[in-house]
Amino acid sequence: MTTQEKLKQYRDWIFKCSAYRMALNIIGIDKQTVAPSAGAAYRDERSSYLAGELFSLETDPEIIALLKELKDDPAVDAETKRAVQLYYKSVMDTMCIPKEEFVAYQKLCNESFDAWILAKSKADYSIFEPYLKRVIESQKKLYGYRESDQSVYDQMLDDFEPGMTQEKYDAFFAALKERLVPLIRKVTAAKQIREDFLHLEYPVEEQKKFMNELLTYLHFDPSWGYQNESEHPFTSSTCENDCRTTTKYIPNSVVSAIFSTVHEVGHAYYEHDVDPKYDGTILSEGISSGMHESQSRLCENYLARTEAFWRYHYPKLKAQFPKQLGDVSLEDFLKAVNASKPSFIRTEADELTYPMHVLIRYEIEKGLFNGTISTEGLDKTWNAKYKEYLGVDVPNAKVGILQDVHWSDGSFGYFPTYALGTAFAAQFVHTMRKELDVDKLLENNQYDVVMGWLKEHIHKYGCRYDAPELMKLVTGEDFDVNYFLDYIEEKYTKLYQL
Amino acid sequence: MTTQEKLKQYRDWIFKCSAYRMALNIIGIDKQTVAPSAGAAYRDERSSYLAGELFSLETDPEIIALLKELKDDPAVDAETKRAVQLYYKSVMDTMCIPKEEFVAYQKLCNESFDAWILAKSKADYSIFEPYLKRVIESQKKLYGYRESDQSVYDQMLDDFEPGMTQEKYDAFFAALKERLVPLIRKVTAAKQIREDFLHLEYPVEEQKKFMNELLTYLHFDPSWGYQNESEHPFTSSTCENDCRTTTKYIPNSVVSAIFSTVHEVGHAYYEHDVDPKYDGTILSEGISSGMHESQSRLCENYLARTEAFWRYHYPKLKAQFPKQLGDVSLEDFLKAVNASKPSFIRTEADELTYPMHVLIRYEIEKGLFNGTISTEGLDKTWNAKYKEYLGVDVPNAKVGILQDVHWSDGSFGYFPTYALGTAFAAQFVHTMRKELDVDKLLENNQYDVVMGWLKEHIHKYGCRYDAPELMKLVTGEDFDVNYFLDYIEEKYTKLYQL
Repeated sequence: MTTQEKLKQYRDWIFKCSAYRMALNIIGIDKQTVAPSAGAAYRDERSSYLAGELFSLETDPEIIALLKELKDDPAVDAETKRAVQLYYKSVMDTMCIPKEEFVAYQKLCNESFDAWILAKSKADYSIFEPYLKRVIESQKKLYGYRESDQSVYDQMLDDFEPGMTQEKYDAFFAALKERLVPLIRKVTAAKQIREDFLHLEYPVEEQKKFMNELLTYLHFDPSWGYQNESEHPFTSSTCENDCRTTTKYIPNSVVSAIFSTVHEVGHAYYEHDVDPKYDGTILSEGISSGMHESQSRLCENYLARTEAFWRYHYPKLKAQFPKQLGDVSLEDFLKAVNASKPSFIRTEADELTYPMHVLIRYEIEKGLFNGTISTEGLDKTWNAKYKEYLGVDVPNAKVGILQDVHWSDGSFGYFPTYALGTAFAAQFVHTMRKELDVDKLLENNQYDVVMGWLKEHIHKYGCRYDAPELMKLVTGEDFDVNYFLDYIEEKYTKLYQL
Repeated sequence: MTTQEKLKQYRDWIFKCSAYRMALNIIGIDKQTVAPSAGAAYRDERSSYLAGELFSLETDPEIIALLKELKDDPAVDAETKRAVQLYYKSVMDTMCIPKEEFVAYQKLCNESFDAWILAKSKADYSIFEPYLKRVIESQKKLYGYRESDQSVYDQMLDDFEPGMTQEKYDAFFAALKERLVPLIRKVTAAKQIREDFLHLEYPVEEQKKFMNELLTYLHFDPSWGYQNESEHPFTSSTCENDCRTTTKYIPNSVVSAIFSTVHEVGHAYYEHDVDPKYDGTILSEGISSGMHESQSRLCENYLARTEAFWRYHYPKLKAQFPKQLGDVSLEDFLKAVNASKPSFIRTEADELTYPMHVLIRYEIEKGLFNGTISTEGLDKTWNAKYKEYLGVDVPNAKVGILQDVHWSDGSFGYFPTYALGTAFAAQFVHTMRKELDVDKLLENNQYDVVMGWLKEHIHKYGCRYDAPELMKLVTGEDFDVNYFLDYIEEKYTKLYQL
């Protein structure tokens, strides 16, 4: 076969895989948003079968041989080579797993997700525990098939953030702890900021009206995006012109759905803005979880928590909720949405305490996979760590160990990227603010211009480069956690007049 | 192979087909409800590929041989034999089509649907016309592959209502015309019923609040059902515990969404109530389009337009819309929702003029396939028929020829079953009312008991029997159009005091 013939076969294979992936994607979004619960077993059995068909396609020996040849073929251009390498790694990681175990694991994850939904609704960890245990055991077994001298958890970390290890994360979290823990202590001791008005009764129907305005401001256009509701907000894209997000309305929180929306739409932009020539290929995905999270948290924290953002939005929000916010000034509102207060819920945590939520999950995951922590009584372990790091008493499992979806479908090693991405974002914003008057744009209803900068400098590349390469390309420097720490220290020192 | 081994292979095949069907189903629902429009081309290309995979599965020569053997195997039980026969007929009808033509046709239908959406939004038939033309040409070609001595349109009629032909429908519609046309004339000449209050401003948000109560009354349980919104209301089921419906809210109509909801939920009950042992097989589907429509129109017309139904609901509706309905009595409201008035929109037509809407479509379809009517200028043909049969001037294509989705995806021969199903329903209701105090149940919030009767006598059988068999089983008689005509004549004679 000539290189051209090989590339034709390669592209046909990508197309076929993308068809199954699209189907599983839409079935997954449907499941997490609107699908009737009693039909879950029927659907899960069949989507497991389709996942098995995709698995067979992905691990076709003829394709593996083809990828191997293309990988070393000098006639293949650099972009295609990058894609081939990523596919090859992914296939090798998958093909080592016997198909029946892979299918069984997919089925287990579906059941585990259903158990998590039920357990969370009843605030009863014991309903979820047996599934969590089985998911972990299965993951250990499945990773055991890989040819690697890394520990299972190191391999998981690498899957979400290529190149990262426990050693590197330990150093990263140590740097965070060193400067954040004393700062948290000072903030906790300082005069507390009034924020009771954020948690009055805010009828969901009224929140939805404001949301329509917000989505318009974000230019989250219905031609390429759609927002639904789900238990845990998420973003899932079928292609660059089909990016779905969800949010969750909380009747006694006026900002929860707003920040979760800006966050998820930040993810959606990353998927939407990738160069169209990569659509449907592995290069259309974000580089890594951390890089993806850097974009969502950039939007949520570095844009939507600024004074400029609220100069535009606060009058509208106040008009929607005159009873609740009538006597609250912009200044007080802004302080409240930036206030730091140790809490139970990661997704609602402030920027200062957020990394601690992630640290707790990281330590538990390490323990679960290194054998020092058991799933039995894990709710108690969880609560103890919250007491230790954040000084809070978790009242029940619903707002404790059952709050996040991630473990129900076996996504271990994912959480740490949340803290890493937040730190990436600080460095990107530092560069962006040198080139762009971000505040003026936010205040003047020009969110699209800010997104345009991110598209041009970050999003359009998709997965063309790896995270360290991209960081250097965009900021001219290697990743440096101090951008984040400087930002946080300055922000909270000023806010609490420390 | 033993019969048992053959049956195992047969059941594996059913499972695999059902997985692809489920995926295409969910992708289809998604497309018609929430999927971002700019992603359509990407998704359509991939769902066409998956439809092609299903096609290959369904027309696998090994399976055709297997079905042929099982069909004639005396060791196969009667229920399985019925299913095998239906599969065999379906496979033979499909397998005669070259796969690439089948895939191309699926793609054309997707494009045609998109064109119809656009055309309807712009009230511009010329956008849709080239697609309609191509869909008809393709259908003629695809049906030409079948070994049949029937005309293409007769084959289409038979696909939706096995056993029906143009000859039989001509006789059916002649019977309707004979008694309905003079009745319509009398009603049109009689004193008109006041119904202006139905068409005031009814904010959609308020309509949705009433809808929540209605769905509860209907026992449309979120564990097995979900209602969304779409351009054209529809029902689509993945399995018996996953039945989706949609509705469409019209800001200046208080009852449009209500009746469309009761109608679609009627379809959903038919899918939900089938004996669980048939789930995932061809026997889980309704017998025919006419039989399916009999259940939806039974709910819409014979239940939801009764005094008993509104004795329960009207006080609640009035409480939701005090400004609009405050001075309207139950008696006047009931008269209004049953009033007969020739109009443009089939789905909003009253019971008396509805069959005329269907007749117009039937005559056009016959003409399109028999070559006496062309797609060019078809909007004018449509308008002329509306003038002739209903005396109305269609103001634009949006409420004229573009109002229905059916032709956009090639569903010709479907419309006539709407009128037939309505007539089936009259005969079923005649029997049901002998055994059940329907009015008392409707007024006492016991809709589930009425549905229970339908489940026990009709729904649970799924496709186990054919339509004439089931009619005899339920009512003890052959189908007789006079049950419908007697009902209509009595109702409208009384309503208009003729």
